[in-house]
Amino acid sequence: MPLKMLESFMNKRISLLLKDNRILEGKLAGYDDYMNMVLLDTEEKASDMTRKLGTVILRGNNVVRMTLID
Amino acid sequence: MPLKMLESFMNKRISLLLKDNRILEGKLAGYDDYMNMVLLDTEEKASDMTRKLGTVILRGNNVVRMTLID
Amino acid sequence: MPLKMLESFMNKRISLLLKDNRILEGKLAGYDDYMNMVLLDTEEKASDMTRKLGTVILRGNNVVRMTLID
Amino acid sequence: MPLKMLESFMNKRISLLLKDNRILEGKLAGYDDYMNMVLLDTEEKASDMTRKLGTVILRGNNVVRMTLID
Amino acid sequence: MPLKMLESFMNKRISLLLKDNRILEGKLAGYDDYMNMVLLDTEEKASDMTRKLGTVILRGNNVVRMTLID
Amino acid sequence: MPLKMLESFMNKRISLLLKDNRILEGKLAGYDDYMNMVLLDTEEKASDMTRKLGTVILRGNNVVRMTLID
Amino acid sequence: MPLKMLESFMNKRISLLLKDNRILEGKLAGYDDYMNMVLLDTEEKASDMTRKLGTVILRGNNVVRMTLID
Repeated sequence: MPLKMLESFMNKRISLLLKDNRILEGKLAGYDDYMNMVLLDTEEKASDMTRKLGTVILRGNNVVRMTLID
Repeated sequence: MPLKMLESFMNKRISLLLKDNRILEGKLAGYDDYMNMVLLDTEEKASDMTRKLGTVILRGNNVVRMTLID
Repeated sequence: MPLKMLESFMNKRISLLLKDNRILEGKLAGYDDYMNMVLLDTEEKASDMTRKLGTVILRGNNVVRMTLID
Repeated sequence: MPLKMLESFMNKRISLLLKDNRILEGKLAGYDDYMNMVLLDTEEKASDMTRKLGTVILRGNNVVRMTLID
Repeated sequence: MPLKMLESFMNKRISLLLKDNRILEGKLAGYDDYMNMVLLDTEEKASDMTRKLGTVILRGNNVVRMTLID
Repeated sequence: MPLKMLESFMNKRISLLLKDNRILEGKLAGYDDYMNMVLLDTEEKASDMTRKLGTVILRGNNVVRMTLID
Repeated sequence: MPLKMLESFMNKRISLLLKDNRILEGKLAGYDDYMNMVLLDTEEKASDMTRKLGTVILRGNNVVRMTLID
């Protein structure tokens, strides 16, 4: 059911909190059963720094939680 | 049996303690065998800060314990 | 055999030491093969603070050891 | 072969070093393939403190090494 | 789908952020299902130091995220 | 092939570096596929302290590397 | 494909970075699917110290990356 919810996040901008407190924001373009994800137009926020990363492949085991950005 | 208990938490507000001491409170809208969860109307509490997160997908391996909020 | 021992703890108050040094005390109401557990009337003790938590679902991989409370 | 050795430790007092440097000493009353163990008349030694714990169920993934106590 | 995206990174220069904050930049020459990777002409950046490493085999479980270098 | 090499270490004194920097030296008397090991006449060296441990069962996932002691 | 690359490293001197920042340099004499490895004529470099270790069996899950030494 969480994976089905992930399906409903497709093609929308999401915010991901990672285990190292990094935040990635991007458009969800793909995912698999391990919550590996592909993000487009990604921005990374760590402490007080923002970087544009473009297309990102993220390993799912670094993820704490995901939310929609409205 | 813990998963059956999780079933009884469905559509109720729960509080989740994560491994990084973060607390998520939200209405449980879904879960799977890995204790990945979908939460609605979620609030996140870390140290002395509260943030509204809305709909959250949580990776189960970050969870320490869950309780009902009455 | 440890799981059979866990069976003998059912409906008794147990004390659980977690990896983050937190202690949970509650009545064991259920468990599964991963040592995920359901506890009733749970109290949590961390450093010098005690909190009543009521019904708790605990992820087994946080557990270090369990003992009976007499 | 290590599990066969564990069999030879049955009903004897053993000392277990855990990953958090805690030491548990008790009579080995059971174990499984994951090195989950049941210990009787257990004493726990952490830094300079000793506590009697009685019967303990230990999760195997916390264990570093085990020795016989003579 | 993230692995299919990885396929589209083949023979291109990518930047990898590792869990220890190390960054590897190199041409992706191979990968497997665990996101183990082979990189050519690799440069490693840790804190304020850059080292040329040539051909690198990377264990996938150290990876946080990957991006294309344009 | 590493396990076949381990076979060639049987009945010889080996030195094991553990993840917590502890060193165990003992005669290898058994092992399994997870690199769980049985050591005889074991000595443990941590910081500047040496302790005789006798027969030791070691959980393989604590091991970094093994060498022969000549 | 990374394992096939590892095959091409056989009988050559390689440098391995471990998760604890230790570096092992030796001739690759064997490996398995978990990237467990056998190294010959191994030298270990940690902070500013070098030690000769001879034949080493290394557990693969400690490895970050491998490179050829020319």
